Amino acid sequence: MTSDRIVFIGAGGAGLTAAFTIARKRPDIPITLFSKDPVVAYSQCGMPFVLDKKIEGFDKLVLYTPEVFKDLGLDVRTSTAVTGIDLDAKTVTIEGGETMEYGKLVIATGSVPFVPPVPGVGLKGVYRLLNLDDGRKLAEAMDNVESVVIIGGGPIGLETAPAFLDRFIDVTIVERMQQLMPSALDPDMTKMLEDHLKEKGAVLITGKGVDSINGEDKVESVSVGGETIHADMVLLSAGVKPNVELAKKAGIDIGPAGGIDVDEHFHVKKNGRALEDVYAAGDCIEEVNAITNRKVVCAIGTVANRQAGFLADELMGIGVPYGQVLCPAITIVGDLQIGSVGLTTRGCEMAGIKPVSFKAKSNTRARYYPEGKHLDIKLIADGQRIVGAQLIGKEGVHGRINELTLAIHKKMTPAELAAVETCYAPPVSPMIDPITYTAEMLSLRCKKLKK
Amino acid sequence: MTSDRIVFIGAGGAGLTAAFTIARKRPDIPITLFSKDPVVAYSQCGMPFVLDKKIEGFDKLVLYTPEVFKDLGLDVRTSTAVTGIDLDAKTVTIEGGETMEYGKLVIATGSVPFVPPVPGVGLKGVYRLLNLDDGRKLAEAMDNVESVVIIGGGPIGLETAPAFLDRFIDVTIVERMQQLMPSALDPDMTKMLEDHLKEKGAVLITGKGVDSINGEDKVESVSVGGETIHADMVLLSAGVKPNVELAKKAGIDIGPAGGIDVDEHFHVKKNGRALEDVYAAGDCIEEVNAITNRKVVCAIGTVANRQAGFLADELMGIGVPYGQVLCPAITIVGDLQIGSVGLTTRGCEMAGIKPVSFKAKSNTRARYYPEGKHLDIKLIADGQRIVGAQLIGKEGVHGRINELTLAIHKKMTPAELAAVETCYAPPVSPMIDPITYTAEMLSLRCKKLKK
Repeated sequence: MTSDRIVFIGAGGAGLTAAFTIARKRPDIPITLFSKDPVVAYSQCGMPFVLDKKIEGFDKLVLYTPEVFKDLGLDVRTSTAVTGIDLDAKTVTIEGGETMEYGKLVIATGSVPFVPPVPGVGLKGVYRLLNLDDGRKLAEAMDNVESVVIIGGGPIGLETAPAFLDRFIDVTIVERMQQLMPSALDPDMTKMLEDHLKEKGAVLITGKGVDSINGEDKVESVSVGGETIHADMVLLSAGVKPNVELAKKAGIDIGPAGGIDVDEHFHVKKNGRALEDVYAAGDCIEEVNAITNRKVVCAIGTVANRQAGFLADELMGIGVPYGQVLCPAITIVGDLQIGSVGLTTRGCEMAGIKPVSFKAKSNTRARYYPEGKHLDIKLIADGQRIVGAQLIGKEGVHGRINELTLAIHKKMTPAELAAVETCYAPPVSPMIDPITYTAEMLSLRCKKLKK
Repeated sequence: MTSDRIVFIGAGGAGLTAAFTIARKRPDIPITLFSKDPVVAYSQCGMPFVLDKKIEGFDKLVLYTPEVFKDLGLDVRTSTAVTGIDLDAKTVTIEGGETMEYGKLVIATGSVPFVPPVPGVGLKGVYRLLNLDDGRKLAEAMDNVESVVIIGGGPIGLETAPAFLDRFIDVTIVERMQQLMPSALDPDMTKMLEDHLKEKGAVLITGKGVDSINGEDKVESVSVGGETIHADMVLLSAGVKPNVELAKKAGIDIGPAGGIDVDEHFHVKKNGRALEDVYAAGDCIEEVNAITNRKVVCAIGTVANRQAGFLADELMGIGVPYGQVLCPAITIVGDLQIGSVGLTTRGCEMAGIKPVSFKAKSNTRARYYPEGKHLDIKLIADGQRIVGAQLIGKEGVHGRINELTLAIHKKMTPAELAAVETCYAPPVSPMIDPITYTAEMLSLRCKKLKK
């Protein structure tokens, strides 16, 4: 007799959310989740704001207690690593050698931080911020350091930088590319972000990689392009990569972007053939970019959460194709909001698209209304339709990114977007919305270039 | 020889903006604007916030000085009423009898407040808030009253109510319908607004009309449904109606909604036939609702401003059809934001559409992030596609209304909207956006009702 149990390897945004949904709608289906972490069901995205003391303590980030799992009939095994998958026997092996049979298997192993291959990266004092345990350790260590080097100008390090600065810790951010947040922003859109960090006292080094992390027992300095920067602590923020080791070991196909290759029903593949009863979802898979049609890795919480909805339906036998993605994202650095969706200029060029863009400096309120905030906005088109958007400001970014996501999803041209009605009141927007204005200007530029 | 002059009657949001656009792009075209008002080019929408002392003085609302008009070559005649239009002679007559020939005529006479036909409405102490002069008079009078009755639960009165309350003036709001903001909100969406006003000390009377305004020389009380309310002042906020007297006198067609009937190039009509050289735009016209295909009046600044762009192109010979409208709007009452777009439940019923709706109570931030604000949201579908949306909360309304405007404009179904990606960060949104959640629930409800 084969098992009808659904086994999840990983209980993060994708795995746990899908399991919850199934448990609520189909309590008859037995479900087991294995997680290496001692605590599951917490908000990863909230950690920088606990460090920044906006949120009181890491416990606030725990969304569900083990009692909730029990009430839902979910068998959640924390602190339990899965060490192997036997696709023929339809079993997983856990630490210690015990095996469990599965009816359906979901690989939701998430991502692992990219660790730059530099000497000293294993020294005491080098931190990362992926799970709750990392967060607690970092919080404790932070109170005893005077200087930190953040390696990588990506979202996690930048969101955490204010926590260091508010504690009067010297912060140096080192990014190998010529700019911060290179995967979300064009170089000419980073000024407000860089100014904000510099004003708060951070030192930014771009266009240079870290040569080594130095110290006897623990971090003492970091070498960057010949220069030595004193540092008591290093925080790795050089991005993440799909955690695919277990899948790879089982012979499951890994795609061109480095994630597990799945079809649009989340079935994994072996030698190019989809496996009926094995699925993967979340940060560990790659998906299809809606503009370029190319495979991408999009390791953000909302994407994993959204996949979980599709995956749960799939596992209950009522699935619909998952479709393609634009990966809209918003990053909060102090009181600055940085939003992006679709392709950057560099992303266009890498995909063979000739970008046409327009950038505007605008405001979040009527110009005569007090306390309006600067808003920088850039829209990018492929000459015909909008393919990317970037916004940065102290308010008014979130809703506009979602609106632009919808516009790109619906393949709108700049002219069409510029003609859409908008709402207005002096305390919350200018009469002509920055999106409307920028889309109008981009439309004129596209027209001009066509002539 | 015929004139090539464009003559505008009215220099508000529609007229002045169109004239500005033409003056910038085609300085060769002579333009004259007539306005009854002593000051033009000011923000009407900003007036409640001057009264509320958020903005320092009415002068801040003046966007352009007469020098700017002169520099642009615009002939702006303020404090000058047009008294007649001769369509055959192609002339307008101004106060005093002088006439001016036009090549093209634009009627942009705006709206006038609806004055309820009750005894005493002409008494001293009865105010309205339409133009800058009204605003200045009201501001001066406000400092010497102890109690006010606001007649009508529409946006202008509600936006002005906090200005009275902050001055410790007793405020009673009387609305003939059973609820505040009946044209924007469903009855079950007004609770947060009503609680907000009551908390600040306002008395709300709904479902009753004003019988009379009483007093000898000046307002002393207001009678409502047998009750007498003491009042030193009355503010009329019973809505506005298109100012069509001049057009009517010239024999121009008025449409079923009470506005000037124009075609999609803003040509007015006479006996059903479009006139080549006479246009109308702004609050004085009626337009076509994009969902019901019926004529509506939509007297808001953004609509007039948007029309101005289309009209300017039309007058320069490069016009495109104006299309239909959804009239998204946002009203600010104290620190509460009330947004709506498309049809209300009542609007659906009046148009013969059977509405299906879902209402959710949500939050503007992750639930563990401090200072998140309640957000009430309601989406309305016609069983198939989304036709209306209402949001109310202390933040996060503006961008969502614009996103929903786009969704309705693109004729999206609730299921399609629920599947669109959104961006997320704990300080600015919950993981699952309130729009996503509400659209998902509405989709399920629509499906259930179809069975």
